[in-house]
Amino acid sequence: MRGLFITLEGPDGSGKSTIIKLIGDYLKDKGIDSIMTREPGGTLIGEDIRSIILDEKNTNMGAETEALLYAASRGQHVHEKIIPALEEGKVVLCERFLLSSLAYQGVGRGLGIERVKAINDFALRGVYPHLILFFHVDPELTLKRKTGNLAGDRLEKEGNEFHRKVYGGYLDLLEMYPKNIKIIDATKSIEEVFNQSIKEVENLLSKKEA
Amino acid sequence: MRGLFITLEGPDGSGKSTIIKLIGDYLKDKGIDSIMTREPGGTLIGEDIRSIILDEKNTNMGAETEALLYAASRGQHVHEKIIPALEEGKVVLCERFLLSSLAYQGVGRGLGIERVKAINDFALRGVYPHLILFFHVDPELTLKRKTGNLAGDRLEKEGNEFHRKVYGGYLDLLEMYPKNIKIIDATKSIEEVFNQSIKEVENLLSKKEA
Repeated sequence: MRGLFITLEGPDGSGKSTIIKLIGDYLKDKGIDSIMTREPGGTLIGEDIRSIILDEKNTNMGAETEALLYAASRGQHVHEKIIPALEEGKVVLCERFLLSSLAYQGVGRGLGIERVKAINDFALRGVYPHLILFFHVDPELTLKRKTGNLAGDRLEKEGNEFHRKVYGGYLDLLEMYPKNIKIIDATKSIEEVFNQSIKEVENLLSKKEA
Repeated sequence: MRGLFITLEGPDGSGKSTIIKLIGDYLKDKGIDSIMTREPGGTLIGEDIRSIILDEKNTNMGAETEALLYAASRGQHVHEKIIPALEEGKVVLCERFLLSSLAYQGVGRGLGIERVKAINDFALRGVYPHLILFFHVDPELTLKRKTGNLAGDRLEKEGNEFHRKVYGGYLDLLEMYPKNIKIIDATKSIEEVFNQSIKEVENLLSKKEA
């Protein structure tokens, strides 16, 4: 496959949605074809799965069920959208991917990183990101940013302790996969976060050309 | 867990739905508490998942996605309904379970029995049937029985070749797990099929008492 696959990962409120658009614009200005997508969702089937996962009435959803639904949605995303775009030589920018499941379901839900990785390997058919940008910010800060928002879906309503566990999971993953993950300091201004991200993207693009 | 877990497996149209009710009635007459359930579905979350799997518009669903959705639905079924009933000492009668996925997704879709078993092991949390009744009948026969039915969901609309492959999968599974699966000759009359099934159920009940 000729394209490049870049994922943006990190806690809610860490700025991923803002930066992904800026990276897309940057690539467009350079004449590089890209698509922007996100998880959970990204396809019609994935959106249907997403609505089951986030439905507030589904409070009795088992941890295994949740992890398998995320993997199913991801499998469809790869099958229907990511592989075809990479085959056309595009850059695929994706907000949240495998790392989110390893942190949220593997560590947050206590299912274990290796077990959650195994069901995702089944879904991914060998398609892994060329670059993972990890938006690093303590969730204490991002949860405060979100304080105004009293509504929220099933996962946003989880307590602070859950989000702290997930954050610990991300830190474990940074140690487990230091080569694949580039750390972006997401406590900085949008401009600074964007510049850090673009540096890594340019680095990847130049490697591809070489 | 004090209960007993019995699954009915086999091709569409092999009589599972009829016989499961008769077994339930039989147990009730003996004063044995049982519940009847089925897959895909069995829980509200599972029914939502089932409707995604069977939706006619989802013709581009990847084989991995389909297998993960079945596993997710099964995980919720085990978590929410089967484990609690077994803990209460009930007999759980379930139409379709793990064997269906191994035959349909593992063999019919060509994903491989072992790979599909691995994602299901994740879902099942160690809960496997004490008895599997396999309703053995050539799908040529059951497909003819269904000829009148021109409508049908996404899986029923698969061609005869797919259903023949699934049947071949079941025959492989009978060889792989000869101890756990009891073969019921489903070409016989309802009364005879029922009698064969009850013989195996009684056998299991007497083992439990011993």
